[in-house]
Amino acid sequence: MRMERLQAWVTRMCRHPIVSNSEVFQLFLTYKDEKDWKMGKRRAEKDETVGVMIFSNIEPEAPDLEPAEVEQKCESFSKFTKAMDDGVKDLLSVGQEHWKRCTGPLQKEYQKIGKAFQNLASVFNSSGYQGEATLTDALTTTGKTYEEIAQMFAEQPRKDLHFLIEINNEYKGLLGCFPDTISVHKAAIEKVKEGDKMVAMSKLTNQEKMTMVKRASTMSYTLQAEMNHFHSNRIYDYNSVMQLYLEEQVKFYETIATKLRQALSQYTTL
Amino acid sequence: MRMERLQAWVTRMCRHPIVSNSEVFQLFLTYKDEKDWKMGKRRAEKDETVGVMIFSNIEPEAPDLEPAEVEQKCESFSKFTKAMDDGVKDLLSVGQEHWKRCTGPLQKEYQKIGKAFQNLASVFNSSGYQGEATLTDALTTTGKTYEEIAQMFAEQPRKDLHFLIEINNEYKGLLGCFPDTISVHKAAIEKVKEGDKMVAMSKLTNQEKMTMVKRASTMSYTLQAEMNHFHSNRIYDYNSVMQLYLEEQVKFYETIATKLRQALSQYTTL
Repeated sequence: MRMERLQAWVTRMCRHPIVSNSEVFQLFLTYKDEKDWKMGKRRAEKDETVGVMIFSNIEPEAPDLEPAEVEQKCESFSKFTKAMDDGVKDLLSVGQEHWKRCTGPLQKEYQKIGKAFQNLASVFNSSGYQGEATLTDALTTTGKTYEEIAQMFAEQPRKDLHFLIEINNEYKGLLGCFPDTISVHKAAIEKVKEGDKMVAMSKLTNQEKMTMVKRASTMSYTLQAEMNHFHSNRIYDYNSVMQLYLEEQVKFYETIATKLRQALSQYTTL
Repeated sequence: MRMERLQAWVTRMCRHPIVSNSEVFQLFLTYKDEKDWKMGKRRAEKDETVGVMIFSNIEPEAPDLEPAEVEQKCESFSKFTKAMDDGVKDLLSVGQEHWKRCTGPLQKEYQKIGKAFQNLASVFNSSGYQGEATLTDALTTTGKTYEEIAQMFAEQPRKDLHFLIEINNEYKGLLGCFPDTISVHKAAIEKVKEGDKMVAMSKLTNQEKMTMVKRASTMSYTLQAEMNHFHSNRIYDYNSVMQLYLEEQVKFYETIATKLRQALSQYTTL
């Protein structure tokens, strides 16, 4: 599980155009001895473009956005990520409940059904009446089939629900980072708004105010880029995991039908 | 339900070689007016061969059975009917529990799964990101499919479990009559045993004792005939109901697999 999650995290980082190319990430993936690692770490610690300073490295090749537009984009990202966070958490709780039911009560119930049929078969077998071997054999097979189905129900979540839950857990983690990111942007927007008043009070030149607007615009483009990356990954991830989930579900129900059909074929039409 | 059970009872009576030919049963099936019914009822009430007197009408065309053999047969019928009574009650309780789970928690759970997928689809739809209509449509279809599956789970017991439960309810009723029938036979066997002592005490002639043995033998043959009839019906009934049950179960799981396969086909491999 830890291995699987580390792999998922590394894969995700490798997919990110900036992170995957960063020196410190490359070092993490490729360092051969402790010395390499320590030197790299020291270099990384000297990096001054951390936190919001990252934006100083970014030059969007596009016209500056109006502050109102920046604010509106930020609002819509915030709304979307909150809604998705709720949706993901809902799916997680439903999925975990279903997992428990499959491995708990459902498995037990199909086992009980299987035992009841086999029990009846063994009673019938003790009747002393001639010529019911076909029925008792078929009933026994039916009972064993339901016991196999019980086992299938217990094992199925690991084959499909597991992946659906893992991806949603990952997204829960990613979505959990957005409120902080978005509040940095909201703070910048507020500063720009204050800027207007400060210009009016002559505490700020128009030139300085324009720089603030430009910076907010840069932040907004950056967030937009991050969101685009997020959306494209999200579409890829959910498309993949849903196909995997449904493929396994189809196999599951088809296997049950096949097993029951085999049990059915053991009965003779009298 | 009452109609269905009356039909099941009449069908069962019609299958019985003695009951189906009895005057009173024929009258019940064919009487046209109240007068016919009353007259027939009065005739039936005058019938003196009721209760154990029925045995006086029976002449088995077979050698008398040894008292030990009679006792052994009676024991084995008693053992079988008790075991089958337990088996039937077990299957009934398991079946009823499964019915409740299908129409209750399982329906709700598949509904919740369906809603969670549809909810996520509608969040995704609000992303403002281009080109994810295929994913959101497919997710919506998946969600609706699970809601349909929820409905299928809720409706399925009426299509298969119902018949399994009805037949077992009938057999529970039939098996409930056996303890009384068997105790009549056991009482007769005890009388024969007492007969031995009474001959020793000269309270009974050997001839009278032989008559007792003969009568016990006749009762045993009658019970054997009844049991043979019971077994042959039982094999027929369980063979039929199990086939019906499994056919419906196969259809059920196949339909689920088909629905899920349709939902799966809506996703595109990216």
